[in-house]
Amino acid sequence: MKRSEKNTVSLVGVGVIGRGWMRVFSSAGYRTQIYDENRLQVQGAMAWLEESLLQDIRDGLISPKEAEKCRKLIYVYDDFHQALAGADYVQESGPERLDLKQAIFAEMDRGSDSRTILASSTSGLDINAITKGIKGANRCIMAHPFNPPHVAPVVEILPTAKTAHSVTERTMNLLAEAGQKPVLLNCFIPGFLGNRIQAAVMREAIHLVEKGVAGVEAVDAVMSHGLGLRWALLGAFGVNNTNADGGVREYYHRYGEAYIGWLNDLDPNPPSFSPEMIEMIGRGVEHMEGEATVQEICTWRDRLVRKIVHLKEKDPHP
Amino acid sequence: MKRSEKNTVSLVGVGVIGRGWMRVFSSAGYRTQIYDENRLQVQGAMAWLEESLLQDIRDGLISPKEAEKCRKLIYVYDDFHQALAGADYVQESGPERLDLKQAIFAEMDRGSDSRTILASSTSGLDINAITKGIKGANRCIMAHPFNPPHVAPVVEILPTAKTAHSVTERTMNLLAEAGQKPVLLNCFIPGFLGNRIQAAVMREAIHLVEKGVAGVEAVDAVMSHGLGLRWALLGAFGVNNTNADGGVREYYHRYGEAYIGWLNDLDPNPPSFSPEMIEMIGRGVEHMEGEATVQEICTWRDRLVRKIVHLKEKDPHP
Repeated sequence: MKRSEKNTVSLVGVGVIGRGWMRVFSSAGYRTQIYDENRLQVQGAMAWLEESLLQDIRDGLISPKEAEKCRKLIYVYDDFHQALAGADYVQESGPERLDLKQAIFAEMDRGSDSRTILASSTSGLDINAITKGIKGANRCIMAHPFNPPHVAPVVEILPTAKTAHSVTERTMNLLAEAGQKPVLLNCFIPGFLGNRIQAAVMREAIHLVEKGVAGVEAVDAVMSHGLGLRWALLGAFGVNNTNADGGVREYYHRYGEAYIGWLNDLDPNPPSFSPEMIEMIGRGVEHMEGEATVQEICTWRDRLVRKIVHLKEKDPHP
Repeated sequence: MKRSEKNTVSLVGVGVIGRGWMRVFSSAGYRTQIYDENRLQVQGAMAWLEESLLQDIRDGLISPKEAEKCRKLIYVYDDFHQALAGADYVQESGPERLDLKQAIFAEMDRGSDSRTILASSTSGLDINAITKGIKGANRCIMAHPFNPPHVAPVVEILPTAKTAHSVTERTMNLLAEAGQKPVLLNCFIPGFLGNRIQAAVMREAIHLVEKGVAGVEAVDAVMSHGLGLRWALLGAFGVNNTNADGGVREYYHRYGEAYIGWLNDLDPNPPSFSPEMIEMIGRGVEHMEGEATVQEICTWRDRLVRKIVHLKEKDPHP
């Protein structure tokens, strides 16, 4: 097998997440070897790839030449072990079940060169549990992307307790070179960073609607025409830092008490997610979104997210 | 005084918020009459206006002709009552103190035509308290902008218990015509919508750093390269609606339990905002932001926010 100078990456599982990784790694110029025990999944991923490349050409996000480069770097394998051969890095994106991921990792560990990094896309399981008892835990790591990975660049990284420091470093570099934004977690925590912050937002958003303070559309508008415009550029701390001329320290000294007051007023209980609650929000969202289908909204969202990412690349944080 | 066909707006107080309103209303083609009892504040606002118009021309956000249109629509008054004469709408942006705002509203009520809408930019006070006992409470309303108003379009609207329905409607229309995104609250709640949701995010963000789960930079990256990119386009509910092919109902049915689990794991206590906590976050932010000053970051943030808003105008939600 011909090895390019760039990395070779293997993808195990090419469902919704894995197929997004296809775009990430092939766009980066990495040889991308794909395997899925379900042949239909592979067919679906290849059809999706073609469609998404053509859509991006139409949207002016990539050139036909770039699309061709992606296509040429993707290699489909019928054999699991052949798919792993020569890989610097394997990204597992199988079903979100501990027993299945444990079995896949054990097989990946047996079937790959010991210098190969084995990464999991898991969105909720502890990488220490997934890799428990396997010989090569020192080369295993969590690399949890947002959905879809080729649109939202962030990747949450968590090494196992046994992961070699060099493996973490190589993973971060390989993902950063591919245009992703890897962020390092120091320990396992349910929901990782992203889902916890999202849960905190959802709790208050749902409570505001349930209490009748405002409608679904009003709460969403405060985010998409206010808070979210800043959070697309700066996170919670970066925004706080711009909220006072003297930066974040001045802001917290001045407004810490106000925040404590607001926080003590927030409802600490999770939403019920009862059928009634879900129906109320569902109706509000329907009213807000009108005729647009989820698919149409996702296509628009992904196109605009990529344009925002391009804006930031062209005009980066000072 | 010549009345244009468009609205005439008066601004009472032209500090950081009021001067942003100058840009909003003059850009919309409204005659914009300004007053501030502090003459230096007026001078500062006019100097800022010129600087911000020139900066926007350099950034390609507006044309020199548009800047000239803004300049020509701004009228400075030395006399409070003259500044209110002929106004369809008055936007008060004075100091955030109840007694001062009460006095200003009483004076605005006495000194203006009864058909004039009297709006407050208050970021935390109850408009019912501000307008308590004044004769024209039926034409008073809260219109709380984000900072700065000409960059972030959202405006939180809360009528008093006595506000005429037509006043709320005219306020929403006048702001929407000026390119803002007014959102209606049904009742007073501490922090309104935006600061409550921001507080919920800050609580979890600070806890994640305090517990050592991740650093300031990692938490911020999860937002600016992940969550925030979506929230700039869709709010909490709109995003949830795109998280499952079947929309928000399917998503909540499927993941409601996971969210309850994460929420039960979040620390319900507000951050301490102790000197030590503030210092820890302060150092993390310094490390993240490097040499960039708050002013440089704000200028970049505002430029990029406006470009994101333009992207959305050119390619709107389907």
